[in-house]
Amino acid sequence: MPHSPEEKKKVLARVKRIRGQCDALERALEAGADCNPVLQQIAAIRGAVNGLMSEVMEAHLREEFGQPARSEAQRTARVTEMSALIRSYLK
Amino acid sequence: MPHSPEEKKKVLARVKRIRGQCDALERALEAGADCNPVLQQIAAIRGAVNGLMSEVMEAHLREEFGQPARSEAQRTARVTEMSALIRSYLK
Amino acid sequence: MPHSPEEKKKVLARVKRIRGQCDALERALEAGADCNPVLQQIAAIRGAVNGLMSEVMEAHLREEFGQPARSEAQRTARVTEMSALIRSYLK
Amino acid sequence: MPHSPEEKKKVLARVKRIRGQCDALERALEAGADCNPVLQQIAAIRGAVNGLMSEVMEAHLREEFGQPARSEAQRTARVTEMSALIRSYLK
Repeated sequence: MPHSPEEKKKVLARVKRIRGQCDALERALEAGADCNPVLQQIAAIRGAVNGLMSEVMEAHLREEFGQPARSEAQRTARVTEMSALIRSYLK
Repeated sequence: MPHSPEEKKKVLARVKRIRGQCDALERALEAGADCNPVLQQIAAIRGAVNGLMSEVMEAHLREEFGQPARSEAQRTARVTEMSALIRSYLK
Repeated sequence: MPHSPEEKKKVLARVKRIRGQCDALERALEAGADCNPVLQQIAAIRGAVNGLMSEVMEAHLREEFGQPARSEAQRTARVTEMSALIRSYLK
Repeated sequence: MPHSPEEKKKVLARVKRIRGQCDALERALEAGADCNPVLQQIAAIRGAVNGLMSEVMEAHLREEFGQPARSEAQRTARVTEMSALIRSYLK
């Protein structure tokens, strides 16, 4: 998950970007960069990781709720699962 | 929102609890409490505010997705709106 | 802590402001406000709580490191304590 | 920054670990892993990035405040700078 090719592509592109940011941070640290720009790079990575988490949750939402539920039980199960994801990761 | 009486009651109880935590923090500060317990109280308030945000988003999810959409357009609109909420507040 | 009258006053003003934000949120919920503005109010409270936490840590830093340490042992103890606070609350 | 060889080594080890976590996440996504374990991996990366940020700030604190200031002006400048870092990144 996410299963559709476009969702997967978007999410993978974000992961690759975060790895690129880690590479740049490693080079900055090796080169003895100052504390301030290093912290800025780390804050940018933190923002990118939050964006990735949001993207995965949104993809899950689209995939789960983009089609009508086949039954009342399935609808309830979807809502319960999505609710648990929000509770776990919204912090 | 949340509109159902039970959802509203749960959310209001959380807000009142946070206000109670603020009162306790104010008393601790007035009494000259040490930095460490003061920061612990603030961290507890931060956790409670995150819990409140999650509760409101979960209530919204239950109210929006607990019933079948009346049309494809409504389903799409619900998903788009919920997706925007996740993107805005998951950080 | 914070001990100086001005630091204490600033911190208390922030706590009172957060309580005022909780009051406004309670009124909005009682009045049946929509989900979106309610989440915006909660996000504003979250921001204010983070600001309060930062203010208390900065006040602690100023009070601890604003004067020379009386001994090497005291300097080390101050650094160790401040370091633990950063580790505990930077998240 | 951090400048001492041990501090630098610790920080670089954390960056490498985060990159390894990104690699594992990429493999899980390529393999079509479920949403839940994927979100758990992302949450672990988020935790590791926060730990890295804290490590860099603690290293800065140790390097700046581990030695007595050479003057009152230097002490004040150090406190002001560290205070700004706490304010910027504690959120």
